[in-house]
Amino acid sequence: MRTTVGIIGGGPAGLLLARLLHRAGIDCVVLESRTRTYVEHRQRAGMLEQGTVDALRECGAAERLEVEGLVHHGIELRFDRERHHLDFPALTGGRTVTIYAQTEIVKDLVALQLADGPPLFFEAEANGIGGALTEAPVVHFVHDGYQEELSCEWVVGCDGFHGISRHVVPASARRVYEHDFPYSWLGVLADVPPSCEELIYARGERGFALHSMRSPSVSRLYLQVPNGTAPVDWPDDRVWDELAARFAIDADWTLERGPITAKSVTGMRSYVHEPMRHGRLLLAGDAAHIVPPTGAKGLNLAVSDVRVLARALIAFYDKNDPQLLDRYSELCLERVWQATRFSYDMTRMLHAQPDGDAFDHRMQLARLRRIAASRPAAAELAAHYTGLPLAL
Amino acid sequence: MRTTVGIIGGGPAGLLLARLLHRAGIDCVVLESRTRTYVEHRQRAGMLEQGTVDALRECGAAERLEVEGLVHHGIELRFDRERHHLDFPALTGGRTVTIYAQTEIVKDLVALQLADGPPLFFEAEANGIGGALTEAPVVHFVHDGYQEELSCEWVVGCDGFHGISRHVVPASARRVYEHDFPYSWLGVLADVPPSCEELIYARGERGFALHSMRSPSVSRLYLQVPNGTAPVDWPDDRVWDELAARFAIDADWTLERGPITAKSVTGMRSYVHEPMRHGRLLLAGDAAHIVPPTGAKGLNLAVSDVRVLARALIAFYDKNDPQLLDRYSELCLERVWQATRFSYDMTRMLHAQPDGDAFDHRMQLARLRRIAASRPAAAELAAHYTGLPLAL
Repeated sequence: MRTTVGIIGGGPAGLLLARLLHRAGIDCVVLESRTRTYVEHRQRAGMLEQGTVDALRECGAAERLEVEGLVHHGIELRFDRERHHLDFPALTGGRTVTIYAQTEIVKDLVALQLADGPPLFFEAEANGIGGALTEAPVVHFVHDGYQEELSCEWVVGCDGFHGISRHVVPASARRVYEHDFPYSWLGVLADVPPSCEELIYARGERGFALHSMRSPSVSRLYLQVPNGTAPVDWPDDRVWDELAARFAIDADWTLERGPITAKSVTGMRSYVHEPMRHGRLLLAGDAAHIVPPTGAKGLNLAVSDVRVLARALIAFYDKNDPQLLDRYSELCLERVWQATRFSYDMTRMLHAQPDGDAFDHRMQLARLRRIAASRPAAAELAAHYTGLPLAL
Repeated sequence: MRTTVGIIGGGPAGLLLARLLHRAGIDCVVLESRTRTYVEHRQRAGMLEQGTVDALRECGAAERLEVEGLVHHGIELRFDRERHHLDFPALTGGRTVTIYAQTEIVKDLVALQLADGPPLFFEAEANGIGGALTEAPVVHFVHDGYQEELSCEWVVGCDGFHGISRHVVPASARRVYEHDFPYSWLGVLADVPPSCEELIYARGERGFALHSMRSPSVSRLYLQVPNGTAPVDWPDDRVWDELAARFAIDADWTLERGPITAKSVTGMRSYVHEPMRHGRLLLAGDAAHIVPPTGAKGLNLAVSDVRVLARALIAFYDKNDPQLLDRYSELCLERVWQATRFSYDMTRMLHAQPDGDAFDHRMQLARLRRIAASRPAAAELAAHYTGLPLAL
């Protein structure tokens, strides 16, 4: 099989890139190792920056998002039994964020892709990339039990943190930066209307909790738990009791409970792989970088990588201009490091720190109190949360 | 001896408080353990927030400062061989800072105090405070070889980090928060005009360096050095070579060298003692809290404590209103924690971190790049540097 751009990974990054290239008349093929059902149902993020919504709109994938997405104008910080609303439009000159689950984005993009898009193969597992430093790289993959080859001009690795693409870059050509946090998140999905209109980020002695939602009838809630926690240690009643205790603020506010439909534990890690280009191999999204979920930046970073990459490939094929491709890694990494820093600071500020002392604890409170009291501090948080502008 | 307010310590905090009280007709006595010459020459800070200048002006101690003080409109950050100017008036709505050495403030205040102020005793060493929880506390001190007593209605401890006042608060009534940084500053005074108009904060692989000044003919320079460094390890040539290397940026910029007249090593510590009031004992300045010097907050915090305290004592005596005195600790500590946080962040962002890894290093760069590129991030730094408003 032969194409112009071989895309490994059919998550939101790979699928969005395929659509952006397809609309520009650039051939591509998407290889996804899992089944369609699997990718359409894996629980991931759900908070979209304006730029992410714009990108989906630009490629005609925002029809359902426009109807079902929940536009949020801010978030709430809770600490010291007080609530502080951050008004994003007022702090950023009008910017908002939109709640729409990654599962729904994937469903929308898969449907478009299968209807009129370039080839998308499920259960097509890439197991090798050859010739990354030549002009004719090849993706080796297994499909229907047969070993196949996809010959390309460019290979894009959108295969996530556990994918193979990143490992093609030899150790001598890469630098890796990482940080593991000493806690995890227990996340639950519950069939109950959210108890709040906006996300609540709650910091307290018992640990961090986040109240989010997927839709007007589905809540998404998270609890800080020690690393190594198993979901089985947390029966539903214990989850609700702990959430209620961490969000507790006054008699006017109650956490609504409902049936829990999914429960999982996720570690918290920062990871950056440099560079994001190796010859004709380009990395995008989690394949190149991971952030802890506290800043809601993972999906948005993947989308911004792909937006830069689509423009770079279009400039290359339409205008024979390789400059953006040459700068792809640098352009993305500037934004990646800012998101990494923001996610790190949000995480450190909001979680009970098992490695912290009384001084660190008071510093966390001072940070939160400053954000609650000061316009420049709140504006800086809002600028990152709603998304820095694309560096193009 | 008897007075209304007994002030332990004749540094800028104690002397300024004495003047503010004296002008309001409240009797006080200042006990300073050292000689006049010593206090007038000990090298300390020199960067004054607008509020500090205003307080000195308010009590008639700014005559020489108005002439000799150097008004600064910003600072320069240097990293990655680039220079970034932060324009304080533009970022804060018009605020500036003023360079005027603490030694000069002390000289001005001592002269005023001896001319028309309340009693100021040098070489009067407080060695005990009695009855802090009564309405008639007593300061015990040694003067001219005799053990004496100062009977007061209030005792104010302005005797710095090594003073006795803080230790009067029993362990059961206090909480202490501290953090030691894994590096120190080697500071030099040099008889050479500054090589820059504004302060330069330089971060690099070799470590942090700060270029400051005391006057148009005296430079004040600092180098990050390992803890345990002795000044004798740093002959003058080595100091200048290292400074030149750390500030190096391009051929257009040269560090001017000159005779070094003083050289000392200072540890970097954060320390907060809570509460700042214990009965009729009130703590102010370094007696209650220490910050690393990177944010230039130590002297300014001492002055803001004293401003709050003067207003509180005046309200007590003029209007029989104890409310401000009751809230003294809380009002000061809010500001103290913000300055502690700011000083900690400035310190961590600018110093080579012997306890850091490659990830931490890139996070420092991301922080600096954000401040250089973004208005809200720069505005937040400028707001703290020029001084938060007094919480009154």
